[in-house]
Amino acid sequence: MSGVNLEGVVITLLKEIFDPKGSVLHMIRSDDSEFVSFGECYFSEINPGAVKAWKFHQKQTQNFAVPSGQIKLVLYDDREGSSTRGALQEVILGRPNDYKRIKIPPRVWYGFTCVSQNTALIVNFTDIPHDPSESNRLPDNDRSIPYIWNP
Amino acid sequence: MSGVNLEGVVITLLKEIFDPKGSVLHMIRSDDSEFVSFGECYFSEINPGAVKAWKFHQKQTQNFAVPSGQIKLVLYDDREGSSTRGALQEVILGRPNDYKRIKIPPRVWYGFTCVSQNTALIVNFTDIPHDPSESNRLPDNDRSIPYIWNP
Repeated sequence: MSGVNLEGVVITLLKEIFDPKGSVLHMIRSDDSEFVSFGECYFSEINPGAVKAWKFHQKQTQNFAVPSGQIKLVLYDDREGSSTRGALQEVILGRPNDYKRIKIPPRVWYGFTCVSQNTALIVNFTDIPHDPSESNRLPDNDRSIPYIWNP
Repeated sequence: MSGVNLEGVVITLLKEIFDPKGSVLHMIRSDDSEFVSFGECYFSEINPGAVKAWKFHQKQTQNFAVPSGQIKLVLYDDREGSSTRGALQEVILGRPNDYKRIKIPPRVWYGFTCVSQNTALIVNFTDIPHDPSESNRLPDNDRSIPYIWNP
């Protein structure tokens, strides 16, 4: 299941520059090919074992990176006309081995759980500012999405 | 000393939205009055007791927030024509009590040390991408800046 790449999802390896005083970690630049526009940058913590799911945006694109801790991100494609409609994608994000950025296109359902022993920190860089009118939510156990969290 | 606000430095309290699964933390939006342009977003870790100093940018503006751990940020104004030339400013950034964003204008020297027991994570949101040709560094004990780290 985690081998499927949903249409429009882009995963980019990010650079970690080790420094004994504390590393420097890349996230996104205005001259990156994946950069389109800036809307908002904010952080979401997720505590060990917790699940934050499901979320959906009509218009907003998410760009996630996890500089601290580790999450399992799950995506579900229910987009009309998508070549991967009906598919799920699981991605591990975080350090030390999965320091990457993922671009989640609009209209893809997403949710995540913390898989590290410490609280994980997600940095989200979006293309438009938060607008509650363009987002939807479903409970994490909603039957319309064929995924069971922490079974 | 920490009472002086250097010319052009802006400190903005940021919202923490508590959630038992993990909080959501604001950083910056494109419709914030302090937002000018987006250049780069990256992270800098700083380990307990470590010092990263001094840095200087000819053109780039820094916007720092510390979502994890706590730092003491020190600024030194050596700008010709600045009303606060010669002054130092100390600012504590981080949680739980000092979750703020600070805008550091170009040509202000800055450095920071970790004051939390855990590694602190600084998120820096700049107005232009990193360009080594517009930045300078000095050792943390350089005598031209009247500040002693961890005395």
